[in-house]
Amino acid sequence: MYRTHSCGELRASHINSEVTLAGWVQKSRDKGFMIWVDLRDRYGITQLIFDEERTPADIMEKAKSLGREFVVQIKGTVIERVSKNDKMPTGDVEVLVTELTILNNAKLPPFTIEDKTDGGEDIRMKYRYLDIRRNPVKNSLIFRHKVAMEVRKYLSEQEFIEVETPYLIKSTPEGARDFVVPSRMNEGQFYALPQSPQTFKQLLMVGGIDKYFQIVKCFRDEDLRADRQPEFTQIDCEMSFVEQEDILNVFEGLTRHLLKEINGVEVDKFPRIQYDDAMRLYGNDKPDIRFGMEFGELNSVTKHKDFGVFNSAELVVGIAIPGGNEFTRKQIDNLIKWVKRPQVGALGMVYCRVNEDGTFKSSVDKFYDQEDLAKWAEITNAKPGDLICVLSGETTKVRTQLSALRMHLAEELGLRKPNEFAPLWVVDFPLLELDEETGHYHAMHHPFTSPKSGQLELLATNPGAVKANAYDLVLNGNEIGGGSIRIHDKATQSTMFKHLGFTEEEAKAQFGFLMDAFEYGAPPHGGIAFGLDRLVAILGGQETIRDFIAFPKNNSGRDVMIDAPAPLDDEQLQELNLKLDIEE
Amino acid sequence: MYRTHSCGELRASHINSEVTLAGWVQKSRDKGFMIWVDLRDRYGITQLIFDEERTPADIMEKAKSLGREFVVQIKGTVIERVSKNDKMPTGDVEVLVTELTILNNAKLPPFTIEDKTDGGEDIRMKYRYLDIRRNPVKNSLIFRHKVAMEVRKYLSEQEFIEVETPYLIKSTPEGARDFVVPSRMNEGQFYALPQSPQTFKQLLMVGGIDKYFQIVKCFRDEDLRADRQPEFTQIDCEMSFVEQEDILNVFEGLTRHLLKEINGVEVDKFPRIQYDDAMRLYGNDKPDIRFGMEFGELNSVTKHKDFGVFNSAELVVGIAIPGGNEFTRKQIDNLIKWVKRPQVGALGMVYCRVNEDGTFKSSVDKFYDQEDLAKWAEITNAKPGDLICVLSGETTKVRTQLSALRMHLAEELGLRKPNEFAPLWVVDFPLLELDEETGHYHAMHHPFTSPKSGQLELLATNPGAVKANAYDLVLNGNEIGGGSIRIHDKATQSTMFKHLGFTEEEAKAQFGFLMDAFEYGAPPHGGIAFGLDRLVAILGGQETIRDFIAFPKNNSGRDVMIDAPAPLDDEQLQELNLKLDIEE
Repeated sequence: MYRTHSCGELRASHINSEVTLAGWVQKSRDKGFMIWVDLRDRYGITQLIFDEERTPADIMEKAKSLGREFVVQIKGTVIERVSKNDKMPTGDVEVLVTELTILNNAKLPPFTIEDKTDGGEDIRMKYRYLDIRRNPVKNSLIFRHKVAMEVRKYLSEQEFIEVETPYLIKSTPEGARDFVVPSRMNEGQFYALPQSPQTFKQLLMVGGIDKYFQIVKCFRDEDLRADRQPEFTQIDCEMSFVEQEDILNVFEGLTRHLLKEINGVEVDKFPRIQYDDAMRLYGNDKPDIRFGMEFGELNSVTKHKDFGVFNSAELVVGIAIPGGNEFTRKQIDNLIKWVKRPQVGALGMVYCRVNEDGTFKSSVDKFYDQEDLAKWAEITNAKPGDLICVLSGETTKVRTQLSALRMHLAEELGLRKPNEFAPLWVVDFPLLELDEETGHYHAMHHPFTSPKSGQLELLATNPGAVKANAYDLVLNGNEIGGGSIRIHDKATQSTMFKHLGFTEEEAKAQFGFLMDAFEYGAPPHGGIAFGLDRLVAILGGQETIRDFIAFPKNNSGRDVMIDAPAPLDDEQLQELNLKLDIEE
Repeated sequence: MYRTHSCGELRASHINSEVTLAGWVQKSRDKGFMIWVDLRDRYGITQLIFDEERTPADIMEKAKSLGREFVVQIKGTVIERVSKNDKMPTGDVEVLVTELTILNNAKLPPFTIEDKTDGGEDIRMKYRYLDIRRNPVKNSLIFRHKVAMEVRKYLSEQEFIEVETPYLIKSTPEGARDFVVPSRMNEGQFYALPQSPQTFKQLLMVGGIDKYFQIVKCFRDEDLRADRQPEFTQIDCEMSFVEQEDILNVFEGLTRHLLKEINGVEVDKFPRIQYDDAMRLYGNDKPDIRFGMEFGELNSVTKHKDFGVFNSAELVVGIAIPGGNEFTRKQIDNLIKWVKRPQVGALGMVYCRVNEDGTFKSSVDKFYDQEDLAKWAEITNAKPGDLICVLSGETTKVRTQLSALRMHLAEELGLRKPNEFAPLWVVDFPLLELDEETGHYHAMHHPFTSPKSGQLELLATNPGAVKANAYDLVLNGNEIGGGSIRIHDKATQSTMFKHLGFTEEEAKAQFGFLMDAFEYGAPPHGGIAFGLDRLVAILGGQETIRDFIAFPKNNSGRDVMIDAPAPLDDEQLQELNLKLDIEE
């Protein structure tokens, strides 16, 4: 062993002990006659001291040669520090060094190994192994480990079994794009990497496993957006002989356990909201309910006057910004500019100041009197001192726009507090979703989701109206989990495939094994999957997932540290019976 | 919830309770006026009773329609069983059914869902979801979960952090063949699936993570032998600031913990043996030491006579079979046939009976007298009543042959007791191994393994003699783990690559990122990886891993249940810029 203690361990009680430490040189201060070195490892920092009077000359000299991030081992005596540092756990002591071994040199790192580094994103990704030495990244990885362990402990105690499902499976063109893996032993054939273990966990239910979970990597070959990774981690769960209510209770329990154990936060029973209500009140199926600003629909109190913009709109809808009457004219103009940006896409914004004396001043006073505006205030729940912002247009679009404005303002006003947690179940999702490009319906959750009892017939007549036994768990405006009660009989599953545009042959080729399984005694079952990367980030009070992933890929799906992907040897291609099909 | 209790839960204390159960029909006995149904779920079996006098006629009728593996829900009253069954935990009671709902029908399964099934391997793999309902498979999966949880708990308590490393990495032609993944976004380029997270865990050490572990899938595109899977699971571990002794102690602790928690077995400090001694004494680097039968080298006591076979052999070596003098002439002839099979490849076998009166009778009495044979007995540690078996030939070959014979006999004689556990460290492995086909040396463990201190220079003069800081953990004749202390400086790593036949460019292209990392302050580090599939099987007292894997692949790497791999759509190939290169 290279050490008797870690660099985070020594306290006043260790004074006079002989110790051996090993770690990295965080920094050193050389006063000539005296040198202090901060020695760092995963567990903390300990101050080393070398001084002319007490340290042999050769060690003194070696100490002077130490550069940042050198790896050293020292032996020495723990002594009391003259000027104590109460900001560090080891701040009462320092180690007077008697032996110094340089275990490895270090080139000057390309960025500083500090909480606030001078390195940009790109350079930190290239030298991720150095970035990981920094507390914000290191602590995020440790945090992730703790969350995963708590998930496993909790579910194990609830008699869930973690079962590993295969990574080399079959490609199903439906849904997102698969990553595929050519098979050398099966010429011209390919495996696919799982987008999720969905069908396997359902087969485990058919197999009687009853309660399954797995923390598992999943893969999607999608064009990457910011904060999306081609490989990501799911907490994947499934239960037999359950209804929606059972799943919600069990996984509310898990989430409550995590909030308590990880964040020390006790949360009441999670509120539930129907999908339709979430869209109506927040314009969004993953509303952040840490703050109010619920939508007020204003059609009934706007369409009686001559304001053409509102009269021609399908929906007129507003929110009250708490304290927004403080905004200057310029601030409001900036808000209007913000909603008109192409990323948001509103054509304009009407506003109404609610003065402290209860009077109103709106941008459409020409059309609406105080009595009208009082009704707006009532519906949007605006109080004196607030500002009402009103958008109008086609229902789906205007809801999305107002939702964006709501989140933007909440961010600006500091209402999205990272250590406040407001979980919420969104239930009764539609079964199908219209693809505006193709005009076809596809499964909103996935094709194995069951429609609400008695609504199967509606599929033929009004597919868009069918509701599903599907639910999302939302935390602080992020979907952290989603699931459904599954179809468990072949007839219903066939009907679903038909409505999703599968021919009988396609359904059989891709999911025949699952439909066969349903004929051999499939139990009623359902489940949920959590996005671990996002869950961990939110519990950690962060909005971006990248620091919680040890070796993330960039937005082109590249690992810039190892420089992957990369071309293959010709020989490897030949063995796989493949040729590149690239125009020179 | 479809149930108030599981099918394994009801006891005498529940008598008179109203309960709801759900599960599968294991079997039913219909006596006309009375029907008993065994209802099964993951947790056990509960007997249901329907009888003419107490059960409504419609339910009675429905009960008669139940087939094997039907999924049903019942409500009823727990009553005392007239003839109790003390073989099942629920054997004191039965449930008198008052309501019966058929949740799903089942076709007759293609094999019986019993501990001893009538289904062959192929059909059980195709219907693996039914196979999983059988106790031997279901219990193996539960057992695996328990082992994995104990591993995680133990390592977490020792401050190890589980860090997820990426699955989409870079192909390195060195070593076994990679599975590769074409990148759509990076034209003509490929990811590879990891054969192990080796380089990433080393980078985590450079990153200061200090103690890492991960239970992780790994992939190798090798021609499959029996009981090998293209995807397999490792317990992958790495530590910083450690020497070999530290690693052995920590992971001996883990293994001892598992044996205690999982098997209830307390094991003393694990013995250690040098690789050279293991080869000399057992002809094998993973000796099963649950029984003796150590090799005795007989050159010194055989070469003084005129027996040409021994005189021309590089090595004459024997083992004593306890009680082997009982073998009939025919049994011995069969042993000789067995060693002459092409899979073993011996040219013959000399034997010597050790009679109860201390005299000897050998197959080479023409050449050796009683005094000679007494020396054989002394060296092979043969006792009266034993049989000495002697093979001769080229050292490496004859050791392998005698090792095979030793294991075969131990198996036959019942010396390989599944619930006896004999762990063993094999240490001081050679650094390099000569590839007889190419005449080149390659790394015995992997190219990141460090040579023993002071032996680096020997690489140039006598590469085969260099020993490594490499070790295997062997349990009951199986390698369950292996690891090494790594190289942690660029110069040594470059020297290693050179000796392994890498040009400087190749080394840089494939492992440049690792060698760069070594320049920024890499700590001394080392680790180990356990094969989880095999570890679990051995702890479970089994020799084959297949029942411990939920969805294994067959020997052609196929998943016969989902029928993967499979051809891709042309469109998918085009998107990936690939063409099949197959002769029609």
